[in-house]
Amino acid sequence: MQQYSSTLLEKAVGEFAKLPGIGRKTALRLVLHLLRQPEAEAIAFADAVATLRREVKYCKVCHNLSDTDVCDICSQPSRDSSTVCVVETVRDVIAVENTSLYRGLYHVLGGVISPMDGIGPADLEIDSLVERVRSGKVKEVILALSPTMEGDTTNFYIYRKLEATGVAMSVLSRGISVGDELEYADEATLGRSIVNRMPFTGKSY
Amino acid sequence: MQQYSSTLLEKAVGEFAKLPGIGRKTALRLVLHLLRQPEAEAIAFADAVATLRREVKYCKVCHNLSDTDVCDICSQPSRDSSTVCVVETVRDVIAVENTSLYRGLYHVLGGVISPMDGIGPADLEIDSLVERVRSGKVKEVILALSPTMEGDTTNFYIYRKLEATGVAMSVLSRGISVGDELEYADEATLGRSIVNRMPFTGKSY
Repeated sequence: MQQYSSTLLEKAVGEFAKLPGIGRKTALRLVLHLLRQPEAEAIAFADAVATLRREVKYCKVCHNLSDTDVCDICSQPSRDSSTVCVVETVRDVIAVENTSLYRGLYHVLGGVISPMDGIGPADLEIDSLVERVRSGKVKEVILALSPTMEGDTTNFYIYRKLEATGVAMSVLSRGISVGDELEYADEATLGRSIVNRMPFTGKSY
Repeated sequence: MQQYSSTLLEKAVGEFAKLPGIGRKTALRLVLHLLRQPEAEAIAFADAVATLRREVKYCKVCHNLSDTDVCDICSQPSRDSSTVCVVETVRDVIAVENTSLYRGLYHVLGGVISPMDGIGPADLEIDSLVERVRSGKVKEVILALSPTMEGDTTNFYIYRKLEATGVAMSVLSRGISVGDELEYADEATLGRSIVNRMPFTGKSY
């Protein structure tokens, strides 16, 4: 059954409704919003999506999304190329960048090892990471994967692969979140934050 | 400051974030989802939006969205053309159609009279409604506007405009919602549903 009086509308709503977290009602609201905009605005929206999908590249050094063969981050001479932060996705790069506290480079794995989902080491950018470390410039690898079973497995796999190179490896510190109330922290996190307690130097950290 | 390593990504996220209820984080999630799809899928998404905006028309009878000059609903001979349901927006047409209980035609006003938002009768499809009723075929006009001050004002304005034509006019019944618990119904609605109580015929209604 055709739900709307226009097949063009039907089609656009159907496309929006394919997006994650967007149901048909929200899809309709978004499409009608685009219809109320000047034609140029709606076309600009469509163009941005099509152009992105057609032209975006993956940086051949770090596998981050990029307009060019080597991404902006990798090609900035001011960044510390001896430190590489290993993350799962492009979103994680953005999250770390937003902290403004990291000046090294990245390596986007494209996921974590997850046998349940059929993702093995060969599906991830692990070989290219080993290659990158072996090429000699990298002094420290920061493993910034999710604190899950899969993340830990991947950390360990990478650790075994890089062990022989002698590169320094670190993981993100774990503990209670900034601004968290102690009583609401889960036991595993709170427990770990006691075991891994840090010397207090009188400064906020 | 450029937040992402790709200006193409930046642009697509920016466009998504202009949509109502979509923040930059959600926009990024949606864009990255489209990037994970096959190229044809993402292009189909963009095309559906652009084609809709370029080609969709407004039905010249009822002002609903349509692929053709006269919409599917208005051109169906099986529908009762003597009844016209006056609604605010295209969304309301879809809502009424989804009930499957209405077989008449529609008239989309494009909003309600709202001096606060600078919307007067001339900004709405009221003259065309009067014209349509005067042309003679319409026997009943159902006013299905929002139960708000603006909706009531618009109802009254239309009533005054159509009074002379002798057409029958009705409004949607108001009362407690199907499935509502009485104790949670607001006082105004509950009060009205007592005043406007209906004869009980032994059937569910």
